[in-house]
Amino acid sequence: MTTMLASTTRRTTATGKRRICFPITSRAYYGRSQLLLKKLQEHPGIELELMLGGSILLDKYSRRIADDIEAGGFTISASLFNVIEGGNHVAMAKTACLTALEFTNGFHAADPDIVVICGDRFEQLAIAMAAAYLNKTIAHIEGGDVTGSIDESVRHAITKLAHIHFVTNDDAHRRVLAMGEDPKYVFTTGSLDVEVAAQSVATVTRDSVNRYGVGHEVDVTQPFLLVIQHPVTTERDNRRHLEDTLRAVSALDLPVIWIWPNPDAGTAEMADSLRHFRESVPEAVRKMRFITDLPVGEFIAILKVAACLIGNSSAGIKECSYLGTPVVNIGARQQGRLHAGNVVHAGYDGAEILDAIRLQIARGRYAPSHLYYRPDASQVMVDVLAGSPLYTQKRFCDNADAATRATRG
Amino acid sequence: MTTMLASTTRRTTATGKRRICFPITSRAYYGRSQLLLKKLQEHPGIELELMLGGSILLDKYSRRIADDIEAGGFTISASLFNVIEGGNHVAMAKTACLTALEFTNGFHAADPDIVVICGDRFEQLAIAMAAAYLNKTIAHIEGGDVTGSIDESVRHAITKLAHIHFVTNDDAHRRVLAMGEDPKYVFTTGSLDVEVAAQSVATVTRDSVNRYGVGHEVDVTQPFLLVIQHPVTTERDNRRHLEDTLRAVSALDLPVIWIWPNPDAGTAEMADSLRHFRESVPEAVRKMRFITDLPVGEFIAILKVAACLIGNSSAGIKECSYLGTPVVNIGARQQGRLHAGNVVHAGYDGAEILDAIRLQIARGRYAPSHLYYRPDASQVMVDVLAGSPLYTQKRFCDNADAATRATRG
Amino acid sequence: MTTMLASTTRRTTATGKRRICFPITSRAYYGRSQLLLKKLQEHPGIELELMLGGSILLDKYSRRIADDIEAGGFTISASLFNVIEGGNHVAMAKTACLTALEFTNGFHAADPDIVVICGDRFEQLAIAMAAAYLNKTIAHIEGGDVTGSIDESVRHAITKLAHIHFVTNDDAHRRVLAMGEDPKYVFTTGSLDVEVAAQSVATVTRDSVNRYGVGHEVDVTQPFLLVIQHPVTTERDNRRHLEDTLRAVSALDLPVIWIWPNPDAGTAEMADSLRHFRESVPEAVRKMRFITDLPVGEFIAILKVAACLIGNSSAGIKECSYLGTPVVNIGARQQGRLHAGNVVHAGYDGAEILDAIRLQIARGRYAPSHLYYRPDASQVMVDVLAGSPLYTQKRFCDNADAATRATRG
Amino acid sequence: MTTMLASTTRRTTATGKRRICFPITSRAYYGRSQLLLKKLQEHPGIELELMLGGSILLDKYSRRIADDIEAGGFTISASLFNVIEGGNHVAMAKTACLTALEFTNGFHAADPDIVVICGDRFEQLAIAMAAAYLNKTIAHIEGGDVTGSIDESVRHAITKLAHIHFVTNDDAHRRVLAMGEDPKYVFTTGSLDVEVAAQSVATVTRDSVNRYGVGHEVDVTQPFLLVIQHPVTTERDNRRHLEDTLRAVSALDLPVIWIWPNPDAGTAEMADSLRHFRESVPEAVRKMRFITDLPVGEFIAILKVAACLIGNSSAGIKECSYLGTPVVNIGARQQGRLHAGNVVHAGYDGAEILDAIRLQIARGRYAPSHLYYRPDASQVMVDVLAGSPLYTQKRFCDNADAATRATRG
Repeated sequence: MTTMLASTTRRTTATGKRRICFPITSRAYYGRSQLLLKKLQEHPGIELELMLGGSILLDKYSRRIADDIEAGGFTISASLFNVIEGGNHVAMAKTACLTALEFTNGFHAADPDIVVICGDRFEQLAIAMAAAYLNKTIAHIEGGDVTGSIDESVRHAITKLAHIHFVTNDDAHRRVLAMGEDPKYVFTTGSLDVEVAAQSVATVTRDSVNRYGVGHEVDVTQPFLLVIQHPVTTERDNRRHLEDTLRAVSALDLPVIWIWPNPDAGTAEMADSLRHFRESVPEAVRKMRFITDLPVGEFIAILKVAACLIGNSSAGIKECSYLGTPVVNIGARQQGRLHAGNVVHAGYDGAEILDAIRLQIARGRYAPSHLYYRPDASQVMVDVLAGSPLYTQKRFCDNADAATRATRG
Repeated sequence: MTTMLASTTRRTTATGKRRICFPITSRAYYGRSQLLLKKLQEHPGIELELMLGGSILLDKYSRRIADDIEAGGFTISASLFNVIEGGNHVAMAKTACLTALEFTNGFHAADPDIVVICGDRFEQLAIAMAAAYLNKTIAHIEGGDVTGSIDESVRHAITKLAHIHFVTNDDAHRRVLAMGEDPKYVFTTGSLDVEVAAQSVATVTRDSVNRYGVGHEVDVTQPFLLVIQHPVTTERDNRRHLEDTLRAVSALDLPVIWIWPNPDAGTAEMADSLRHFRESVPEAVRKMRFITDLPVGEFIAILKVAACLIGNSSAGIKECSYLGTPVVNIGARQQGRLHAGNVVHAGYDGAEILDAIRLQIARGRYAPSHLYYRPDASQVMVDVLAGSPLYTQKRFCDNADAATRATRG
Repeated sequence: MTTMLASTTRRTTATGKRRICFPITSRAYYGRSQLLLKKLQEHPGIELELMLGGSILLDKYSRRIADDIEAGGFTISASLFNVIEGGNHVAMAKTACLTALEFTNGFHAADPDIVVICGDRFEQLAIAMAAAYLNKTIAHIEGGDVTGSIDESVRHAITKLAHIHFVTNDDAHRRVLAMGEDPKYVFTTGSLDVEVAAQSVATVTRDSVNRYGVGHEVDVTQPFLLVIQHPVTTERDNRRHLEDTLRAVSALDLPVIWIWPNPDAGTAEMADSLRHFRESVPEAVRKMRFITDLPVGEFIAILKVAACLIGNSSAGIKECSYLGTPVVNIGARQQGRLHAGNVVHAGYDGAEILDAIRLQIARGRYAPSHLYYRPDASQVMVDVLAGSPLYTQKRFCDNADAATRATRG
Repeated sequence: MTTMLASTTRRTTATGKRRICFPITSRAYYGRSQLLLKKLQEHPGIELELMLGGSILLDKYSRRIADDIEAGGFTISASLFNVIEGGNHVAMAKTACLTALEFTNGFHAADPDIVVICGDRFEQLAIAMAAAYLNKTIAHIEGGDVTGSIDESVRHAITKLAHIHFVTNDDAHRRVLAMGEDPKYVFTTGSLDVEVAAQSVATVTRDSVNRYGVGHEVDVTQPFLLVIQHPVTTERDNRRHLEDTLRAVSALDLPVIWIWPNPDAGTAEMADSLRHFRESVPEAVRKMRFITDLPVGEFIAILKVAACLIGNSSAGIKECSYLGTPVVNIGARQQGRLHAGNVVHAGYDGAEILDAIRLQIARGRYAPSHLYYRPDASQVMVDVLAGSPLYTQKRFCDNADAATRATRG
């Protein structure tokens, strides 16, 4: 009887469809998942429910994403405000816990067959944990990569909770197997982000880009820089690193589109620094436009034409590899990640960053790389999600051992 | 300044000692960790803080443990009630989240150098996640093993969040390396549980054991059975499996000491079933004594003399391998775990269980195995915790690949 | 747009019906509200949603209630496990907070016109607070009474958050006005509990009552005692007080039906004590039957025939006033509450309790009192809930001052 | 034993001092309580512990307050990040619940004799609830007043949970008695805010004020306006109301110091609007300076010299009554509050606001009123907190009835 009460809100799938819960907690996850979401939404054998939480519900990050989601006609089974303010590690940890607590109720009510976990954001591990404890089958997108920041730990821990793995490249595939996952459930699909970038036809105009954000008007028909520098949660000097980048970029005297940092631990001091520059050192930012929230299409359109992307965004590694955009990747956040020839690495030193940008501008655009690209990433995922047999009890597969033995033999 | 406020409660370690937070969330963790805790407590370079939460604070599970902890003179920096009632998966998931939310505050206030995470209980993963997000170095005890239940996923996910690994056997060592951990930080120490069992000199008498629990008086000088059957959180039939075991055990007409199931998902229906038998089928339990809470010493003393341990406790695999106690291991909870010759496996079928018990009783005690035993488990851990260099940024080590290449070469 | 996302889950009431959320957190609230719930459910202008949380979801308290709710065909928009184990004050406070946190999500999704808050349980204040912060109109049932325990504070604090007040008697009406509520929104409806008792036609048989609970069989055709002693959360000696009552009752050597205490702070030690008596002092409880969970109809049927109700339940004050059942009311829990002639008060002294019970048994049943009774309590409430104008901004009405001035003038 | 574990962190007051917990959740509460805090801190019979939570821990609101608290040498027993982002009603309700959940742990660990609750902010009711459930004696500052917004409900609900009441004026005293509080525990002390204002000797200079905030430089030796307009949580048009005020103020072409709105529900859209004006309608704000965080002394110094205070801050009603500053009070937030002659009320209509400001500027400063002033507010509170007998079980006192009867007699 308690069971009855506990599951009263389960809406039975009389249709026999597979119910898939898709938690979205940041604008980036919505952006990169849009082809997949559309195909899941249209699949006759799938009942898709979006569950929203985290920063995607916060106006300042996601106003325009909301339009998109609404226009998509999706079922949104939960909208949970659970970002704890502070922009520091305590707030980050507690946000993760509160998010998972609330998603537990959502999963319990929705009773999905599969929960899809994207990427490596801190709250996604907490959500995966909740789903695992409810005995749901978990499909994880983009496991197996190597990077810096806390994302590195988060990504692999999610792998160890997940049952179905969609990885973007062969190295990641090999690592997921080494970690003991079942080879039958590991699929190299390429990157959703890159598929979106490859298919996007949006263009950007001077008018369109200047509708977003605040600051200087940027003429996108002239060479301009794009900066995206997120906090590295495992480091203490995020503010100083940001300011070194800002000074280096400012020294080039080119127009700059600066995307506001993600709301991870360290974001408070970075935002504070950016606001300080805008108020008190206006000359340093006199050619800069600061944008917190941009539709995916326009973002890719900007990536396509930027003279150089500077910072530590995964877009530099993934989307830009396909688009051929020159990238100066700064610091440890993407450290160790598989990358194409379009990326030049720099430490946090201003002079080094400046040199690297100059080098990349001089070099110009690169030929497209297919390192992270497969033509049908989203379709492969949909096929697996719709048709794969499902399981919940995991067991470590000794693939490494098998490999070794195979080699020995 | 916010930083100031945020860390006001940090009590500076003027002494330069290493501060270690040790979360304890179940009676079992306290029991098996007691030698380690004592040595950490006495180490001149270490400042130990226990943080209590979960079922250890609940009277029914831990009354006597509390005496021990109090007598130990430990610093207890937090006592957090965070078990959500229900005994089902929702309660389990939410308990984990709430526990981690509250431990975040505790870690933030204590600001430890190291957080020690024991084993593979569901709330320990949540606590590890919180510690990781606060950039603490995490030491994990008993990673790398393979079992059933949700513990299997939990254990490996903790490994991917932890920085220092204490494993109990060589297979576990190999798996932790395969998962990409740094070989310099993986230590095969043997099992703390087995070390405690090896050193324990307590004995049990008819008087002592019958002080605990409820039900029939058990004469421990005569052959008796010991039953410990916990929920398998990834299965649905915990109640039926428990009842099959109960009927099989009852059929043997021997005295039985039955340890109450752990408070994991599924416990509610198992406890309900046991209560039902006690109230309504008294003849089935007429030789049984039910105990929820037992001091570690007495528990080991009982293990030493029991004619057979039946159920799915890790004590059957670990402690009993050293003690030579015959074990009938039921079902999937310990599935795949490395074990010595003292273990006979059985499915959930009553007849199969009954046969296995009869076989083991006829067989009698086994010779001690050192599969999980190293003489100085706790001392090795203390030495590492006190002296090892610490790090926080993790990075996947391609050990499997290295192994393969080495072999190839 | 955030607003859009925030309210995506609002299911619009195209029908123009008034949506009413009715949080139920204990078996008692369901029992006493059943006539009201039925009428709300059937009203053409009302869309009723039950929201379940607290102990009503816990098997041990509510198994049979669940049957009833399911049979009722109600819409259950949330089932939230949020009872924190411990049975002490910390657990009680945190349960209240967690309950309110989760109900906030529920209220936000349901977006009701009115939230109905029953009585004075600790979690109801927390729920009322959440509803008030979401700008919902709150209707409160049973305000204005005076009692002991924390209920006294809880009840009046809810009054100060509520907009519509249903009180059971004239004294309560006067107090709610004194506290500054708008006279247009205070309705003396009589007690729902008493209306249920007045309309109940269920009878109890020896067979029926012994289906419930554990212990001795009780012959309800012979004189028997009924005991309901809940924790008084503001006192420290709940265990001792329970044991004094138990010894006094035991001394009378009559059959006893003992209803298990409510899960409020103090319940852990009371339950522990009852279990101790059952296990270790069986002679003291040899004529007692212990019941945790009883359908409302059978409960009233027992009230009707019990020789005496002993303890501190509000049923002694309210239902029994109408039914004429002799009551020995013990201690402070109902202190100061308006009562009819059927109640004899006793302190916690065993001898005093014993004398009072003997007196009441000798006295026999009383004539019905209409102190808490109005013939159409539930119908009056439904009419107000369906038709009253609604408001959200409260303002203190100086009724006391008005009264004084009127008198002066 | 559980009790032992549960209270392990209780640091016994061997000294026999009274332990007082003082939760502070906003800059305003710290500012107005500073004289009281200083005296409590210095009292030989009192052990004071500050507990920080809510917006006071957020950099943007409280950077300078933190300096003050640190300089004060206070014991800070908890610093709890618990503000949920969103600036809407859901975030407000959940913030209150999370705050109370976490303060429960803090109260349990600190085990205070008295918890002091200030004012009527939404999280203070949640904290009071937690303290009440832990059976703590609660002292409430500033009960009994009448205002608009959700504060009106919050304030009176806190009164019904509190045991000791410090009210600022005779009307409030009368209302607290009408609500059933014990006359022996209701003290008319005057307002702490006004006492702070009366004793403050800080002055403001052009240099000092322009160190804070962003925007136009303000010459405080010339006539200037001060605007403080907080959200009215029970209204929907906070953005429009803010903009009407902004346009009215802008039309006067005087320098303006604009204090950023409080982080209550509605703040997100108000902040968004202010940011929009700063970015896109710079001419409208060309004489305005926006300040989020100001030391109390400087705030009072500005109040003393401002030509007019416009908005809905309680400072207009309380501090300004004593300081004689002309005030235009807008809308419903302070509706019904007792005020002196310095206040002119206006609705949300821009023209009406403009007329009222012109009227007040023409009128000039007022003579000081003692409506909210008593010379020793903080000392009277300290004496009561240090010496009053304490109780926990509340009971409704029929003061209204008594008054009526007395009058009748």
